[in-house]
Amino acid sequence: MPLVVVGSVALDSVETCTAKRENVLGGSAVYFAYAASYFTPVRLLGVVGEDWPPEHTNLLAQRNIDTSGLQVIPGAATFRWRGKYLKDMNVRETLEVRLNAMADCDPVLPETYRRCRYLFLANGSPTLQLKVLDQCPGTTLAVADTMDHWIVDQREELMELIRRIDGLVLNDSEARLLTGDDNLVRAGRAVQEWGPRFVVIKKGEHGAMFFSRHETYVLPAYPTAELVDPTGAGDSFAGGMMGYLAQCDSFEPKHLKEAMAYGILVASFTVEDFSLDRLRRIERDDLDRRMEEYRRMLSF
Amino acid sequence: MPLVVVGSVALDSVETCTAKRENVLGGSAVYFAYAASYFTPVRLLGVVGEDWPPEHTNLLAQRNIDTSGLQVIPGAATFRWRGKYLKDMNVRETLEVRLNAMADCDPVLPETYRRCRYLFLANGSPTLQLKVLDQCPGTTLAVADTMDHWIVDQREELMELIRRIDGLVLNDSEARLLTGDDNLVRAGRAVQEWGPRFVVIKKGEHGAMFFSRHETYVLPAYPTAELVDPTGAGDSFAGGMMGYLAQCDSFEPKHLKEAMAYGILVASFTVEDFSLDRLRRIERDDLDRRMEEYRRMLSF
Repeated sequence: MPLVVVGSVALDSVETCTAKRENVLGGSAVYFAYAASYFTPVRLLGVVGEDWPPEHTNLLAQRNIDTSGLQVIPGAATFRWRGKYLKDMNVRETLEVRLNAMADCDPVLPETYRRCRYLFLANGSPTLQLKVLDQCPGTTLAVADTMDHWIVDQREELMELIRRIDGLVLNDSEARLLTGDDNLVRAGRAVQEWGPRFVVIKKGEHGAMFFSRHETYVLPAYPTAELVDPTGAGDSFAGGMMGYLAQCDSFEPKHLKEAMAYGILVASFTVEDFSLDRLRRIERDDLDRRMEEYRRMLSF
Repeated sequence: MPLVVVGSVALDSVETCTAKRENVLGGSAVYFAYAASYFTPVRLLGVVGEDWPPEHTNLLAQRNIDTSGLQVIPGAATFRWRGKYLKDMNVRETLEVRLNAMADCDPVLPETYRRCRYLFLANGSPTLQLKVLDQCPGTTLAVADTMDHWIVDQREELMELIRRIDGLVLNDSEARLLTGDDNLVRAGRAVQEWGPRFVVIKKGEHGAMFFSRHETYVLPAYPTAELVDPTGAGDSFAGGMMGYLAQCDSFEPKHLKEAMAYGILVASFTVEDFSLDRLRRIERDDLDRRMEEYRRMLSF
């Protein structure tokens, strides 16, 4: 099944303790789309500026990602994010955000996008996420991501969104902020009871937790010795997860758990290099090989 | 197989955001011994003062823990630890440590202890851990725990210990400190290459990582909504792990992984109440039931 993603398309400047990159391909929708493309056809919606390098579009198109919804805003520049990771790569500082083309983004979905049954609303304002959701009345599975900023500044809109979607993906600190509960098990269950079929709490290098009405579980991250740049890990996780669900055209418990695992594994590749550089060097087979290892690791 | 543990026996005062306890039963050897007692006969070696309540010894004896190596030092008081957990229970402050009876501890093992093939050296000075090891020349499996203090202050002695033991258990921040590498996969592998058959890195609420010459894996913690007091989780983990290995009288890969899982599950009960209060209310059956759930959680 085709899968639509709406979110940021960016040029990132990233610094770690040992290396840095300037203006590399990034953005939540980009990482998501690339990760999901190993499993299912993806349709990407986002805005960029006149400075957008066409080779980035080509790179996405090479993986059969539909970029007809990628709009170039005349006179604008592409969204930029600049960040720095500390020695402990779990901690990052955002040094600069320039919304640029994203500032007045009011997404209008092409007709082919509107008929999609699988939809992912990457991190963005809940108002905007709701506008997109309104344009897709026939979704089977609509899942959203969010962040601390929206939890604080647009709580009411976010709560409306949470009541309307089928799944919410957020990280551990956001789950704590959203619920006021430091215990992630209670936090995840609380959010799930507000409406969605399922909630996923991402824990970075520690994996991810899953909550549905009848199930609570945790899967660890795949242990990699090659952590180069964690940027995009969460979006790649969501892409791998949603991509696999769309491929199966199912979200029964068995497929949800496999989808969580695929999400974890795509993310484990993403962090092994900057931008999409590691993902560009893998095929679906590499994911399946790592999946075998991962299953073996968790079985006893 | 009987299992010997040498370590601290303490009276703890613990404060969390919602409750506090004064002078409750604690200490690394106590948590370890109680956790291990679900699997195998345990022999505990430690020192206490004249203020030691005999009912604590009775509690241990009720689980068939051999306390003949528990020495009362005349004129001394029992080791005290006072600590406070912040709202994020992963962070704790040590408010007070009084070594008391532990100050001049120079352990001499009873003859029955010396013949033990399974030995655990709970956190303590490497000098003292080496002295104990010297008294047990016939061990099949000698495993030690350590902490930041010894990594900094007795590095040479600790390195000698690491070369001589079969397994090392330490937490994530200690592994980083010991190796100077923030990546836990690389850190764990590095320590393993210094000598031990295996290294286990404890990650608190995020589970534990295992490293042997041929294997690297991570198992997540069991997700509990009832986190009351994390004190003793790491020692309970080690107790469950070593207890199961001693029960199997084997440390082949299959048993090591099951042992890791049992360690994780005993610890998940320990944190559900203060001191040994939760463990006192469970039997081996409860561990096995949780093990079934845990296996189901990790299989897909």
